[in-house]
Amino acid sequence: MNALKPLHKPIKVAMIGGGVNSAVGRVHEIAMKMDNEFELVAGCFSRNAEFNAESGRQYNVPKNRLYPSAEKLIEAVAHEVDAIVIATPIQSHAQYIHLALDHNLRVISDKPLLATVNECNALLKRVPADNAQVFSIFNYTGYPAVREMKRRVESGSIGTVFKVMVEMPQDSYMRLKNQNKTHAIQAWRLEDGDISCVSLDLFVHLHSLVNFVCGNTPQAVNAWSRAITNVAPGLIDEVDAVIRYSDNLIVNAWYGKAVLGYRNGLRIRVFGTKGSLQWHQENPELIDAADDAGNRMILDRIATESTITALPRYNRFKAGHPSGFIEAFANYYADIAQAMRDEKLNAYTLSMGVAAEGLALSQAI
Amino acid sequence: MNALKPLHKPIKVAMIGGGVNSAVGRVHEIAMKMDNEFELVAGCFSRNAEFNAESGRQYNVPKNRLYPSAEKLIEAVAHEVDAIVIATPIQSHAQYIHLALDHNLRVISDKPLLATVNECNALLKRVPADNAQVFSIFNYTGYPAVREMKRRVESGSIGTVFKVMVEMPQDSYMRLKNQNKTHAIQAWRLEDGDISCVSLDLFVHLHSLVNFVCGNTPQAVNAWSRAITNVAPGLIDEVDAVIRYSDNLIVNAWYGKAVLGYRNGLRIRVFGTKGSLQWHQENPELIDAADDAGNRMILDRIATESTITALPRYNRFKAGHPSGFIEAFANYYADIAQAMRDEKLNAYTLSMGVAAEGLALSQAI
Amino acid sequence: MNALKPLHKPIKVAMIGGGVNSAVGRVHEIAMKMDNEFELVAGCFSRNAEFNAESGRQYNVPKNRLYPSAEKLIEAVAHEVDAIVIATPIQSHAQYIHLALDHNLRVISDKPLLATVNECNALLKRVPADNAQVFSIFNYTGYPAVREMKRRVESGSIGTVFKVMVEMPQDSYMRLKNQNKTHAIQAWRLEDGDISCVSLDLFVHLHSLVNFVCGNTPQAVNAWSRAITNVAPGLIDEVDAVIRYSDNLIVNAWYGKAVLGYRNGLRIRVFGTKGSLQWHQENPELIDAADDAGNRMILDRIATESTITALPRYNRFKAGHPSGFIEAFANYYADIAQAMRDEKLNAYTLSMGVAAEGLALSQAI
Amino acid sequence: MNALKPLHKPIKVAMIGGGVNSAVGRVHEIAMKMDNEFELVAGCFSRNAEFNAESGRQYNVPKNRLYPSAEKLIEAVAHEVDAIVIATPIQSHAQYIHLALDHNLRVISDKPLLATVNECNALLKRVPADNAQVFSIFNYTGYPAVREMKRRVESGSIGTVFKVMVEMPQDSYMRLKNQNKTHAIQAWRLEDGDISCVSLDLFVHLHSLVNFVCGNTPQAVNAWSRAITNVAPGLIDEVDAVIRYSDNLIVNAWYGKAVLGYRNGLRIRVFGTKGSLQWHQENPELIDAADDAGNRMILDRIATESTITALPRYNRFKAGHPSGFIEAFANYYADIAQAMRDEKLNAYTLSMGVAAEGLALSQAI
Repeated sequence: MNALKPLHKPIKVAMIGGGVNSAVGRVHEIAMKMDNEFELVAGCFSRNAEFNAESGRQYNVPKNRLYPSAEKLIEAVAHEVDAIVIATPIQSHAQYIHLALDHNLRVISDKPLLATVNECNALLKRVPADNAQVFSIFNYTGYPAVREMKRRVESGSIGTVFKVMVEMPQDSYMRLKNQNKTHAIQAWRLEDGDISCVSLDLFVHLHSLVNFVCGNTPQAVNAWSRAITNVAPGLIDEVDAVIRYSDNLIVNAWYGKAVLGYRNGLRIRVFGTKGSLQWHQENPELIDAADDAGNRMILDRIATESTITALPRYNRFKAGHPSGFIEAFANYYADIAQAMRDEKLNAYTLSMGVAAEGLALSQAI
Repeated sequence: MNALKPLHKPIKVAMIGGGVNSAVGRVHEIAMKMDNEFELVAGCFSRNAEFNAESGRQYNVPKNRLYPSAEKLIEAVAHEVDAIVIATPIQSHAQYIHLALDHNLRVISDKPLLATVNECNALLKRVPADNAQVFSIFNYTGYPAVREMKRRVESGSIGTVFKVMVEMPQDSYMRLKNQNKTHAIQAWRLEDGDISCVSLDLFVHLHSLVNFVCGNTPQAVNAWSRAITNVAPGLIDEVDAVIRYSDNLIVNAWYGKAVLGYRNGLRIRVFGTKGSLQWHQENPELIDAADDAGNRMILDRIATESTITALPRYNRFKAGHPSGFIEAFANYYADIAQAMRDEKLNAYTLSMGVAAEGLALSQAI
Repeated sequence: MNALKPLHKPIKVAMIGGGVNSAVGRVHEIAMKMDNEFELVAGCFSRNAEFNAESGRQYNVPKNRLYPSAEKLIEAVAHEVDAIVIATPIQSHAQYIHLALDHNLRVISDKPLLATVNECNALLKRVPADNAQVFSIFNYTGYPAVREMKRRVESGSIGTVFKVMVEMPQDSYMRLKNQNKTHAIQAWRLEDGDISCVSLDLFVHLHSLVNFVCGNTPQAVNAWSRAITNVAPGLIDEVDAVIRYSDNLIVNAWYGKAVLGYRNGLRIRVFGTKGSLQWHQENPELIDAADDAGNRMILDRIATESTITALPRYNRFKAGHPSGFIEAFANYYADIAQAMRDEKLNAYTLSMGVAAEGLALSQAI
Repeated sequence: MNALKPLHKPIKVAMIGGGVNSAVGRVHEIAMKMDNEFELVAGCFSRNAEFNAESGRQYNVPKNRLYPSAEKLIEAVAHEVDAIVIATPIQSHAQYIHLALDHNLRVISDKPLLATVNECNALLKRVPADNAQVFSIFNYTGYPAVREMKRRVESGSIGTVFKVMVEMPQDSYMRLKNQNKTHAIQAWRLEDGDISCVSLDLFVHLHSLVNFVCGNTPQAVNAWSRAITNVAPGLIDEVDAVIRYSDNLIVNAWYGKAVLGYRNGLRIRVFGTKGSLQWHQENPELIDAADDAGNRMILDRIATESTITALPRYNRFKAGHPSGFIEAFANYYADIAQAMRDEKLNAYTLSMGVAAEGLALSQAI
């Protein structure tokens, strides 16, 4: 790996994918500028010229900085930008990461970083697991309350963690099927590869949250994967996994896209010998905590003993005014900016090793 | 089995166990009289004379109807009572059931009916699985909202059920341990037999709820049982089980007594292809429902399409005035009274077959 | 007032009204026997012979203990019962109370005790305000959590109370009107007297809760009463009142029967200089508390510092198994039993002075 | 009023106040750029040179575009910017608005627009009430769920609205006092003028929400204002107001800063003859709705009949990923951009008439 060029301030980026027709483009665009750490200067937001142009208009990127392909984009901007943001379908991440590395650029990828364990091994031959050049955005770990949970677990305030219940039920495939709208599902999500799409979409989040909050290492997995909606024949959309981790931790994980009643019911419940911490993504500012006698507390951003959530960076406006998903995303972007400047990972930027572990576990499910 | 004697009205019962020093005695005593279906006329509430006497005083049972042992009680009352209520530690149920049957009496037992599969097989040699003589109180199925869920599932209103998430986390052992109060745990709960105590205490409820609401049959179980608190060395107190049922149903069950944050977090979530139903025992009047587009409704007792919860028998006082656990218990008692009078089981009195299935599954965990 | 006769154990009562066709009869019948403090031995449950007979059947009162009128009942039972329970329409309470007093009997009345201030003054000429002969059941104060709130306020744990928000929104009149079912409203509720029916039904509860929990004295009231549903022309069914109490307490009270979204949304929120306590009747086991830094706690029955709710009398079954409205009612009945035996009021039996204050305030609204 | 200059795209703005040391500066800075409608090009973020410089650094505004006073800023930028954003203490708004108008600039002011009725009358002499030049950000009306409520009310789906319960309890003054941290309260909030600070801070929000959602006109107000914390002697911090509106609507409003248990418990409950809608700012994506039979629904962003919340502009990321306060703020900024381009107000930009009404009502309280 050559030395990377010094960073601009704000960090200049070009984006591949993430057009206005994509699910996640707007989120990247807003999150990267929120704290003025990044500046989007060019893009190939879509290979469809019309979408690309419209994205440029909405993202305030001049026409002459729009490119018809990722290759042309990188060729054109390699000398001036600091990093490439990849927000394309998962299956294409590997290709664009390598292309960016070829040009000695930093990379920020929508999660999951890669689609298979093989891709991951190939990349790890090129960059070390703890590199500060290739980042994936584990966005849910950007929520301040999740970081407060991490601090509390690490400090021992809930004792030894022996159990994590984690779930990410979603209704999208069942709902769309019931409404005859399955055409709205992106084509690349309708074919499972080495790893099922639903695991790439959802399980890598669950894995990273457990890794982030608790730090234990997975050791053995039992899983039940099923195709319930059959929006594509045999497409996995409902999974249970019971995973044995180091230090006698059991993680009971459930996720899928066939479950009516939840848009995105991501929830993590961490149980220790002296207390517990529960968090629900759809109401993300609050932690339900219990102490060693089972007394329950609702921790908000400025609860007396919550030192992380009270930090100025998480209080863009004062407590009582909810912050949400995009701010969590922006928090993670800011951590990446910090890691890029420091040229090493920090407590909040998960390493490629974590991404690799998540993919390996996903493949085992 | 001889013909049983005609029933009094109210049905006359004598109770074994269930003294004022027990956990569950007061509940039986109140529930059986609530709807004037049963009358408690005698008892051996405790083999401790003082507790027995005090129980008689509090339950309004005359001194001369208190007996020092179950044997003496049954001998004395067999000619006059209709049924024996058993509210003793689980391990003694079999003995007293047989004793009652020897006297040609009906039996109502606190759940679980029996402690082992062997006991169950022995009893099934004596009475058929669908007998209306020996009853166990599956109290949580007595909640009106649970019965409404059953009706809705049976009517097909949520389509085909493919997943049940069920959990019963409790904090008692961890809380007591943290407070140096483990002496408060009954001795008979501190030694696991063929079936762990925690499964006898909790899993049989989860099993019966799934059976009651969905009706599917278990086919294969994977389970992880652990001793976390070690209030007694090696005592199981934390269990995950993933159970494959008939008709492609997966039940993810979690229960235990080591989990701070829940006194008794019994929760069942039933997911079908056209909707879902969720119920939480600690707020038992409400059902969280979702329709086939994922729209959410909160169903209370008199929600327009809730025909079961709106029945007069569940509206001892009008909606908006919460009913609780004891009323659920009383509902089950009333169903038993009905079954006794009809001399056959009804939709709400679970058969000994269900009890046997629950024990077999518990033993497999 | 003559000396009252010694009490039986259990206390023997006869009931006027409260038949199976009434709203509240079943509640009285269950609550009085729940803790074996009272025994219902006779009644005129309805002047309709059929309802009276059916009530006797359901309440397990023999046919020969059923009477066609309150007068005949009292005449027949005065020598043997200890108390009369009155569960008739409000407008008839005065008449039956006086009748019972004429026979030197104790009285337990459904709330409100009386329908007008005049009736109240007349009764106070006959018995002192702090008498232990005539009781009204302020049932919501029987909830253990409400009693825990009282203890905490009295102990100063939330500092000086300066504000109470109290509300009792109900949907019944609007819902019935929208369903063309207004005929289901009892006739006696459809005509306002000196005090509007909605205040007799609801406000007296709000008043008694504030009196019970905080103890302050009302000083001035501003109120807005409106007829919204017009289920009867001009019938008041929606009221706001802002009431100035002693010690700089303001009570903002809202109640009515025209509000869709609530079956019985009784809620009280008490704000002090060092904390707050909030309680919602539809989830009655929990108190939402805040400390002097605004940290929030959810207090359940056995929260470490909750000494009242943890008492054995409120734990008929262990925490985690919700108790409800009827148990609250039974708690109040037990307190009345205690007061009758002690021949003086206790901390939980509100005096006729409180009833009088509530009626006076209602009349001022 | 002269014709305004044509707008740049994005609209160029300079900001007065709103430095990194202020409460609300970051929110404006993020909200205005979120949808690329505005570009912040210059500022006098603070008269303190150090804060001004640090704000420039964080907001990515070059040093040479920072000015030491509002006057110097406007003088310097009047020829190039489209609008001035005012985020200073309320008492200075009038001065800066007039200054901007003197330079024929558009104005976006933090709410409330002005501090007194007199200031408002003076400004209305200069611009008409429905002008599209001077805007105030009624940020809570920017929440999509509030807009969905407005649509539903206007469509008649809940019938005739007869009651609004609205509240905005906050704990800040009491909490800070209890922690001896009252120094953290801005000095300009510690002295009441014609209108109490707490009304300027909170009531104008409540007023605008009622105006926005229901549209009725206030007719008579009764209010109780009190000084509870006395963080400054006699400073009003706890208010009840019962307000009679047109069309038989009563609004019961409660707000203050002395109430432990709420960071910012803004809640609005709208009751009509065919249903109700409830919204709680601390969980802003959901509406609790009830239909004409009192059935309850939880409406999220993509509930089947929610047409407003489902619009692409409110779905920067898909449902199930909560959006929060800053996005609501950004929504309002986008509406202002639209109104500026259209040169007339739209359904979501409240007129100066509304601001004037809110101030008049505040002064009457």
